[in-house]
Amino acid sequence: MPRTVDPQLNERRRRQILEAATRCVIRRGFHQTSMQEICAEAEMSSGGLYRYFDSKEAIIAAIAEDERAENAAIIHELLRTDNLVKTLQGIMRKMLKVFANTDYGRLGVEVLAEASRNPKVAAVFSHNETELKAALVTALKKAKRDGQIDPGLTLRAIAELLLALIDGLSTRTLVDPGCKPQQLDKATRVMITRLLRPSA
Amino acid sequence: MPRTVDPQLNERRRRQILEAATRCVIRRGFHQTSMQEICAEAEMSSGGLYRYFDSKEAIIAAIAEDERAENAAIIHELLRTDNLVKTLQGIMRKMLKVFANTDYGRLGVEVLAEASRNPKVAAVFSHNETELKAALVTALKKAKRDGQIDPGLTLRAIAELLLALIDGLSTRTLVDPGCKPQQLDKATRVMITRLLRPSA
Repeated sequence: MPRTVDPQLNERRRRQILEAATRCVIRRGFHQTSMQEICAEAEMSSGGLYRYFDSKEAIIAAIAEDERAENAAIIHELLRTDNLVKTLQGIMRKMLKVFANTDYGRLGVEVLAEASRNPKVAAVFSHNETELKAALVTALKKAKRDGQIDPGLTLRAIAELLLALIDGLSTRTLVDPGCKPQQLDKATRVMITRLLRPSA
Repeated sequence: MPRTVDPQLNERRRRQILEAATRCVIRRGFHQTSMQEICAEAEMSSGGLYRYFDSKEAIIAAIAEDERAENAAIIHELLRTDNLVKTLQGIMRKMLKVFANTDYGRLGVEVLAEASRNPKVAAVFSHNETELKAALVTALKKAKRDGQIDPGLTLRAIAELLLALIDGLSTRTLVDPGCKPQQLDKATRVMITRLLRPSA
């Protein structure tokens, strides 16, 4: 729904608010961030802000939409590859680069903490997770049919382990400040290969 | 430092407070929980509470101490085993049982969110993590010397991946309400075996 006659300006404003909100949440936490602080950070009047988002929940729903768009690119890769092991390794490499930025993990933890107590927030994020898991299971099934991965693997459980690994890597720099995610690229590649390849 | 002449009563009171605090934090979040609410939940006067803990930070430090005691048992197992693959599989199985309780992940996420903004809280938890990682690397080195695991593996990176996997599994039920951690036992065993075993 357009807020001004100029859709590009709308999108720019929307993005400006989301980026300001993200900075506030990383700095102070989701619950401790007020709509007033987001206005100040975005250098916008509260009237301006409320024309785009009527609550913090609406802002977090928009952050979830962004995550969904990122997931869509990953899902597209998963569903069209002819070499799943290599594709998963490439996806992981890109993610490890993102996870090197501690702010990414910080935002994720805040969103998850909020989701654990707020069913509306939980619903949008678990929807994203379900879509991603379904695509991963579909890709694993195809790779199994094509003889690329071990036929003995339980694919749904393997998908859940891979998603758990990604979650854990996303917050590694928070838990262990000495960890450099990008240095885990080789070990991650090795893990994916060894986990999936057909047994000798 | 004893608060009454009876050390058992002291420990019982301390435990009563920690359990009350944990329930409050899971319900409302670390930041949104006040010392007054913890008093009410523990059915204790604020004078009584403050004799044991002078701040929420002191309570969270005590929760970290509990985690450290749990880690000590794991570290002991890791350092004395002659079959690391089997020991890791056993540790994972016990953890998956714990992770089936969504409250465990909820508490973890709250603590991590607080740690990401509070260096004092971060310090106690990253100390635990560093101890656990060091023990895991030592155990992997011994297993490598004994020919139990693939000599080509980069052990520090493998340890970080395994710890990331554990973290990710601990919050899986929050992210994906359909996930049943205990059903991942077989896949986790397969993953550990395939990751570590010497190449054919």
